[in-house]
Amino acid sequence: MQLPVTWDWRDAELQENATPLRTLRSTDERPTTVAAALSELLGRGVTQGQSLGAGYRRLWAELATATEDGKRLRPALLEASYRAWGGTDAHAFSMIGAAIELLHTAFVIHDDVIDDDDRRRGRLNVSGSHAAEARARGVEDGRAREYGAAAGILAGDLALAAALRAVATCAVPTGTVRRLLDLFDTALHTTAAGELDDVRLSLGLDAASVEETLTMAERKTAVYSFALPLQAAAVLADLPEPTVQAAGEVGRLLGTAFQLVDDLQGVFGDPAETGKSTLSDLRAGKQTSLIVHARTTDRWDEVAPFIGDATITEVEGRRVRDLLDSSGSHAFVQTLACQCALDALTLSLRSGLPRALVSWLRVTSFELLGRAA
Amino acid sequence: MQLPVTWDWRDAELQENATPLRTLRSTDERPTTVAAALSELLGRGVTQGQSLGAGYRRLWAELATATEDGKRLRPALLEASYRAWGGTDAHAFSMIGAAIELLHTAFVIHDDVIDDDDRRRGRLNVSGSHAAEARARGVEDGRAREYGAAAGILAGDLALAAALRAVATCAVPTGTVRRLLDLFDTALHTTAAGELDDVRLSLGLDAASVEETLTMAERKTAVYSFALPLQAAAVLADLPEPTVQAAGEVGRLLGTAFQLVDDLQGVFGDPAETGKSTLSDLRAGKQTSLIVHARTTDRWDEVAPFIGDATITEVEGRRVRDLLDSSGSHAFVQTLACQCALDALTLSLRSGLPRALVSWLRVTSFELLGRAA
Repeated sequence: MQLPVTWDWRDAELQENATPLRTLRSTDERPTTVAAALSELLGRGVTQGQSLGAGYRRLWAELATATEDGKRLRPALLEASYRAWGGTDAHAFSMIGAAIELLHTAFVIHDDVIDDDDRRRGRLNVSGSHAAEARARGVEDGRAREYGAAAGILAGDLALAAALRAVATCAVPTGTVRRLLDLFDTALHTTAAGELDDVRLSLGLDAASVEETLTMAERKTAVYSFALPLQAAAVLADLPEPTVQAAGEVGRLLGTAFQLVDDLQGVFGDPAETGKSTLSDLRAGKQTSLIVHARTTDRWDEVAPFIGDATITEVEGRRVRDLLDSSGSHAFVQTLACQCALDALTLSLRSGLPRALVSWLRVTSFELLGRAA
Repeated sequence: MQLPVTWDWRDAELQENATPLRTLRSTDERPTTVAAALSELLGRGVTQGQSLGAGYRRLWAELATATEDGKRLRPALLEASYRAWGGTDAHAFSMIGAAIELLHTAFVIHDDVIDDDDRRRGRLNVSGSHAAEARARGVEDGRAREYGAAAGILAGDLALAAALRAVATCAVPTGTVRRLLDLFDTALHTTAAGELDDVRLSLGLDAASVEETLTMAERKTAVYSFALPLQAAAVLADLPEPTVQAAGEVGRLLGTAFQLVDDLQGVFGDPAETGKSTLSDLRAGKQTSLIVHARTTDRWDEVAPFIGDATITEVEGRRVRDLLDSSGSHAFVQTLACQCALDALTLSLRSGLPRALVSWLRVTSFELLGRAA
């Protein structure tokens, strides 16, 4: 799972020029309070670990690096929604925003172990850097990779536990903590199910339809990345359950649109922008919406040999892109992404979400779809 | 990490015949309330997952199986201590006992992924059974193992989150929940550090002394398996911080004794009793107290070639055992285990732990040391 990395808050603000959202941060000025909350949570791990050895402290240092990498889309979505609903408790949204970011970090690190990836956004990730250390010290490659995987599993466990602890100890009323714990719990279960689906689909253990691929993406990414921040904001703002439900549904649709754009960028994107090769999804045989659609077209016989081919070349990659164009798969996924984003906006209007939030979501969607055009 | 599996509560009770401990369960009658709490926590995962697919529900089924396997030593230790301190809230100790058992399950499952073990106590574990399913459906071995690892990582994440949620939502005063969360947090950090140490020592990334090996074992096993249940019992019984600290220290010592006995049984034990081959620690090149001591003796040149040798035979295994006898390493570790157990008892008396608890710990230690004799 990887979200588009070219996300730019400033663009969104400029396009919309929406006054109620002036308090949102631009790219250069990340939400400092979420940052402070993250520092506190990460610092706690280091402090606790003063006596637990250099290896352990390094896990936390790498966790801190991993949280620095992203655009912190999820805490920003939480903050924007919470403020749009009139929320004013900066400490609460900062801690919950930091918790969501740490949950994301845990998922990303475990996902990289599961996919045996040693890099993320062009840099060595937790498992990659640990494996590299072991190799540099003369450990043979296979065992070095096992050590990297061990470090990744443990770092993810620490991030997951820190996230849940942050929710459990958040200084809000007990009933709110309980509702938040329920949201995090559902998000965690759903993401685990989506991750498992993803691996099963890649192995061909389950037959994939476009619907199943979308369900997988919704479970694996949309729920914790979009539904969770929106719902947590609604709960922090003490809104009734129907609003929380509607916010969740909007988040699922928006998240699915994001995932579809990510599928497109994984094959058609600019590596300089996305930070990943346009061949890696093809090499891994990922059953993205593009590939699953292509399978239903008459160009599949030509596409199939390249899917899951670890030796695919740049020239062959261009050939696959041409085939995905002529099969109509590229256009199909673009249309689907657009449909999901429009459905999200329609639902947010119908559900009476605050104007500032709907306008923020609209800008976000347009910016997103523009990138996939 | 594997605790001795021949633990038998009935033996302990018969030897001691201690009236205050009559309420403890025998082997045939496990603590039913902890069992009920576990069923509730595991059932919650299944219920939540009704719409999340068969693969996801299977993860929970395997988690349930994994918790059935053990002797539930940790919840029993919690219950015994809590009752000895006069505690009467059966619901509270059941939920916290179940949480500790789930934490243990999470560690064991992730540990098996890290060590690439596909069995535990002679049965396929979560990753092993998932890999077997994939192989049976025609997936090649390497990818089937990756799928198994993915399932293990995710199942462990679910168990870890369920454990922390059980603590966070436990029906005790907020201050008690906070103290319990702190204890679980410390245990989790310490165990992660110990697990990382273990992998580093196995790879030879850090030079190992007997002290370092003991520190690793204390971190990896003793803290969450012994200190945590004792400390959680003290917190549930609303005892002051010095008592909680003393309970933790007693737990660390007792846990270290257990780990030393486990090291002995891993090489000298009866496989029918321990459920694991006496060759597996040697094959894996585990830097146990036995091996680390042997390295300091003049028999090391003869022992060394067999450590980490994946092809070691039964005959060679007997040869290694003879060498570990003649080097004095066997006796050294036995003495050390005895010393740790005695230190635990001395400290528990000095710290004024309740008579029923001290007597329970004494029986436990004697039974343990008898097995390692």
